[in-house]
Amino acid sequence: MSLVEQAPVTFDATSFYAKLDASRMASITLATASTTAKDDALEAIARAVESHAGAIRAANAADLERGAANGLAPGLLDRLALDAGRIAGLAAAVRDVIALSDPVGVVLRGSTLPNGLQLSQVRVPFGVIGAIYEARPNVTVDIASLALKSGNATVLRGGSAAESTNGVLVGLIQDALADAGLPRESVQTIDEFGRPGAAELMAARGYVDVLIPRGSAQLIDTVVRESKVPVIETGAGVVHLFLDESAETGMAVDIAVNSKVQRPSVCNALETIIVDSASAPRLLPAVLGALRESGVTIHADERARAIFPDSVPAVPEDWDTEHMSLDLSVRVVDSMDEALSHIRQHSTHHTESIVTNDMRRAERFLGEVDSAVVMVNASTRFTDGGEFGFGAEVGISTQKLHARGPMGLPELTSTKWVVRGSGQVRV
Amino acid sequence: MSLVEQAPVTFDATSFYAKLDASRMASITLATASTTAKDDALEAIARAVESHAGAIRAANAADLERGAANGLAPGLLDRLALDAGRIAGLAAAVRDVIALSDPVGVVLRGSTLPNGLQLSQVRVPFGVIGAIYEARPNVTVDIASLALKSGNATVLRGGSAAESTNGVLVGLIQDALADAGLPRESVQTIDEFGRPGAAELMAARGYVDVLIPRGSAQLIDTVVRESKVPVIETGAGVVHLFLDESAETGMAVDIAVNSKVQRPSVCNALETIIVDSASAPRLLPAVLGALRESGVTIHADERARAIFPDSVPAVPEDWDTEHMSLDLSVRVVDSMDEALSHIRQHSTHHTESIVTNDMRRAERFLGEVDSAVVMVNASTRFTDGGEFGFGAEVGISTQKLHARGPMGLPELTSTKWVVRGSGQVRV
Repeated sequence: MSLVEQAPVTFDATSFYAKLDASRMASITLATASTTAKDDALEAIARAVESHAGAIRAANAADLERGAANGLAPGLLDRLALDAGRIAGLAAAVRDVIALSDPVGVVLRGSTLPNGLQLSQVRVPFGVIGAIYEARPNVTVDIASLALKSGNATVLRGGSAAESTNGVLVGLIQDALADAGLPRESVQTIDEFGRPGAAELMAARGYVDVLIPRGSAQLIDTVVRESKVPVIETGAGVVHLFLDESAETGMAVDIAVNSKVQRPSVCNALETIIVDSASAPRLLPAVLGALRESGVTIHADERARAIFPDSVPAVPEDWDTEHMSLDLSVRVVDSMDEALSHIRQHSTHHTESIVTNDMRRAERFLGEVDSAVVMVNASTRFTDGGEFGFGAEVGISTQKLHARGPMGLPELTSTKWVVRGSGQVRV
Repeated sequence: MSLVEQAPVTFDATSFYAKLDASRMASITLATASTTAKDDALEAIARAVESHAGAIRAANAADLERGAANGLAPGLLDRLALDAGRIAGLAAAVRDVIALSDPVGVVLRGSTLPNGLQLSQVRVPFGVIGAIYEARPNVTVDIASLALKSGNATVLRGGSAAESTNGVLVGLIQDALADAGLPRESVQTIDEFGRPGAAELMAARGYVDVLIPRGSAQLIDTVVRESKVPVIETGAGVVHLFLDESAETGMAVDIAVNSKVQRPSVCNALETIIVDSASAPRLLPAVLGALRESGVTIHADERARAIFPDSVPAVPEDWDTEHMSLDLSVRVVDSMDEALSHIRQHSTHHTESIVTNDMRRAERFLGEVDSAVVMVNASTRFTDGGEFGFGAEVGISTQKLHARGPMGLPELTSTKWVVRGSGQVRV
């Protein structure tokens, strides 16, 4: 488990569960808090972040210094760092959440039964959301804000690398909540319980209603496998693009380059191109040439290398790798069956796209590919809550239960059936 | 773990996973099968059950004989037994599923983005559904039929007590599927892998999309805790009725008696009455008197016993017990706060009801009680898919993720985002 830890901590179960009990009590108040009350608290949080930028930076400097001394990788140190611009970004993110509509209380369906019972299915908060993440203080503010707007209490485990920063942020958030008349315990951290606290959080069925892991594929995998609490999995993307034999060359080039190059480090970026052998001699020189010009390293199978030698030989692990970099795997297949079989074997069920002008094959691809988002003639980069019109994104779910694909605020809620009667009994 | 087992089995992982691979391949065909094809297969299954009643009874007799020799409890033997009437019931249940509307392909929402991308969120099958249950051959037919109609393949682990019966049923179902032109492997049993097979099924992430446990609270709890595969939990019901001080006596009597007595062995039956001390002297003699007349044993706290002596003293475990019998726990409280606190502590979040004529308290109860179904002035027995108008019920979910409360066929599906473009890239 990659939850970076320093010194062993003696786990105090009594105070741990007292904290979770306080989260539950806070969640009861939050569940019926008005949208105005929640928005006021969010505005108070945004202001507190802005007016305490100095304290946040001081705590962050302490984390960075300790991280550097502990040999934290430069990429992790960069994610951990908060400068003035990023702190302003935290406050802006909170205000973005204010602009989202409140999902709580929305009636999804309802009816009056023949016996006069009035039935309605209403959106309600989950209750208590746990979050386990690594060294990214912005997640502290993001998750707390999104959970607050959707009426949920939050228990945060941010990892020891950012413990000072997160401590200051959670303190500010709690003061702002109290100022706005909501329970301080609506947002709590369990960082002081160290790794045993993270493990206990995953076992705390009945105390935590849902757990959201954020971070490396390894962290997410650990939480998914270990947790007894239901998890919302925001998984990795080994994203495929299939260039069908009818694909128009220009469209194939544009979609491939945009999917791979626009932002290679995110989960909707392209990892593997599969091309039909009938069109490989036409498509590969143009598509891979344009990708090379953008600085992409092509990991090609033998048949692709025969057509496009400016590449490195693909190794079996390439097909299952989310590169997060300007690296791309390329494979030539002899049929759509073979392409679908490759995708079935190697996809992480995030996003898959086909470039084609053949309607039958387009529909077959949409029907048979088992991914959260399936596309025809579009860049895989469109798998995004903002692009989908959700206003903000809670993450991209790669699981099939509860939510699949880009999640908005409604995905942070459950439902409840409300039955109003006048003395009805069952016959 | 209470998965009754006989002799140790050597677990053959290769053939186990070959079976799961075959389920996955079958699920791909099922996902795009037409409603007509699925309904034809269901009708073929219903006919096969009817025309092979003799073979089913012979296999069932063997299971019953072995069960009696192994000292299986009479209640379990009764659940296991299939007579002519119950076999006819199996076929009728399959035909009930034909009558349900097919959830697959339903478009839940969609839009055309400013750049012309056409977005739609479509219901799709989960893929492969695993089921773990105990000694109830009707579950074999029920789950297989509901899964088939919703386009899912099924992997069944029915427990060794019903292994012969389930083997015959699955064989009949597979022949009927093949006759109807669908893959035999759409429905498979893994009973031959014994307890290790059940354990492996819970670990088979990527092979099984969702696991449904059916049976005792202990079985469900084990699956929920052990499974790495997402679980749909259909939990126990420690169901509460709160008699507010404004409750009308007649209504309180009718609702209490119906909730407890109409069918005491099911999960929506009442387990605990909480009554406000202000109205206990008025309500308890009438309510508990009527329950006693219906043969209910009253487990009362001291204050309730002082008012209604024809009762036994409640012990602390009573508050957490799903009696499944004509036993009822009764407690007197001094405030609504105390009632809500008791419910928070002891409810299994299934169904809770209040009898009241006070609007403010009714709304508070509906808002604050955190259960799948919350009711005012109605019998708790109404928590039921059939009563809710779903046509049939897949079970009653007590979890908050994915589905909550009575589930219909749509709850056996996931969704997929379909994006249709004409070469769009992200700017």
